[in-house]
Amino acid sequence: MRFFAEPQDIGKSRIKLSAEDSDHIRSLRLRPDEHFVVCDGAGIDYVCRLGAYKDDRIAEIIEKHQSRGEPTIDCSLYIAYAKGARLDYAVQKSVELGTYEIVLYKSKRCIAVPNNIPKKIQRLQKIALETAKQCNRGIIPKVSSAGEFDIMLDIAAARADLALFCYEREEDLHLKSVLEEQFSPNLAGKTTDAKTVSIITGPEGGFEPVEVELAKSKNFNVISLGKRILRSETAPVVALTAVMYQTLNL
Amino acid sequence: MRFFAEPQDIGKSRIKLSAEDSDHIRSLRLRPDEHFVVCDGAGIDYVCRLGAYKDDRIAEIIEKHQSRGEPTIDCSLYIAYAKGARLDYAVQKSVELGTYEIVLYKSKRCIAVPNNIPKKIQRLQKIALETAKQCNRGIIPKVSSAGEFDIMLDIAAARADLALFCYEREEDLHLKSVLEEQFSPNLAGKTTDAKTVSIITGPEGGFEPVEVELAKSKNFNVISLGKRILRSETAPVVALTAVMYQTLNL
Repeated sequence: MRFFAEPQDIGKSRIKLSAEDSDHIRSLRLRPDEHFVVCDGAGIDYVCRLGAYKDDRIAEIIEKHQSRGEPTIDCSLYIAYAKGARLDYAVQKSVELGTYEIVLYKSKRCIAVPNNIPKKIQRLQKIALETAKQCNRGIIPKVSSAGEFDIMLDIAAARADLALFCYEREEDLHLKSVLEEQFSPNLAGKTTDAKTVSIITGPEGGFEPVEVELAKSKNFNVISLGKRILRSETAPVVALTAVMYQTLNL
Repeated sequence: MRFFAEPQDIGKSRIKLSAEDSDHIRSLRLRPDEHFVVCDGAGIDYVCRLGAYKDDRIAEIIEKHQSRGEPTIDCSLYIAYAKGARLDYAVQKSVELGTYEIVLYKSKRCIAVPNNIPKKIQRLQKIALETAKQCNRGIIPKVSSAGEFDIMLDIAAARADLALFCYEREEDLHLKSVLEEQFSPNLAGKTTDAKTVSIITGPEGGFEPVEVELAKSKNFNVISLGKRILRSETAPVVALTAVMYQTLNL
């Protein structure tokens, strides 16, 4: 378990905790020599303890180091809106697997675009935070909305060295051939060619052919995730797992 | 969507459907020329239609072929008992990803071994069936219980060419190096060395060191799944995804 603090609350020798985190840490009943980690959400971990100051919300910094849970590649997931529990699941699992961010978008066959998108984003962001605390992340992956499909495509293409479009009816191009071509299969070295990857997955009813054509026209790699039909919440996690595996981040 | 039938209900030219499946198919309101698939659960699909017989429970076989959703490798997952929703999730996702079977077992740190194990197994088997119908499987992966940890280890070792023991504190041996060594990285060919793989993952609290030592003494490959802490229901699905990816089954 770790905690995240805002940059303005992190000083040279001490960190101001939120009231909530301070309560949580006290409830753990740590001994004075037991430490906990506060992360700045930008890849730096601070090993801390309480007790040096009268204020329980002030933690003393013992040492700092790079967060160890961050992958060497930034993978952004673009996920079509889906019914509640499916998105909860996709966010939780992708944060565990090391996603950089999650971007939601509307696709023609989406059957559950929420009426109140900011509220939905806020709820999913909370799941991302709670998961990041549990699974050793050095950042809190951001959850956001890109709006319509065509806008999402432009964002996904612009932000990444490698853009993958997962299509359930694709039969020829497999994820593995694209990833092996892109990433040198050198077990010793950690360098890879692409540093940023966009992964796009569709809604429960699949993509419309016109959406796939648009992705092809924008030079996305339209790839298959195999012969079994993956549910809409499973596909992004599977594609992310494959990228992490191929780039030695698993 | 597909349906499964028992071998004794499958004839040369017709299949006797269960009352439940027959009702379900009628509710789909298929036209006489629309077909549906009935699978024997042993890798053969029958393309069928209704209407040739007066009895709605008798389907006429149009053609038969090998199921197309089965992977070329048999992967058995050995999963420690965990709280309800976690096992539901692990079963559903691993069936989607192509697991051959799911075997539950007791580990020292299990906090939720059910009182009524047969009832639990029955419930999970139902999830496996429903998922197999939706995701194009040619078999219904079996859910069973192996009892205690040491018995499970012997079963997992005996049944597989390659036995993987996922340990959250392992730092040196990565899944990718084991899988790359085992499976020839030949994109064109589909042949691999190991035909059967056992994957063992632990309970929410992790394995006891004594359990890991026992696995090592039995020559399991004790491997890491990366620097982030994966939840107990996530780890088996991630390891399975990696095996499917490496063996070109994704």
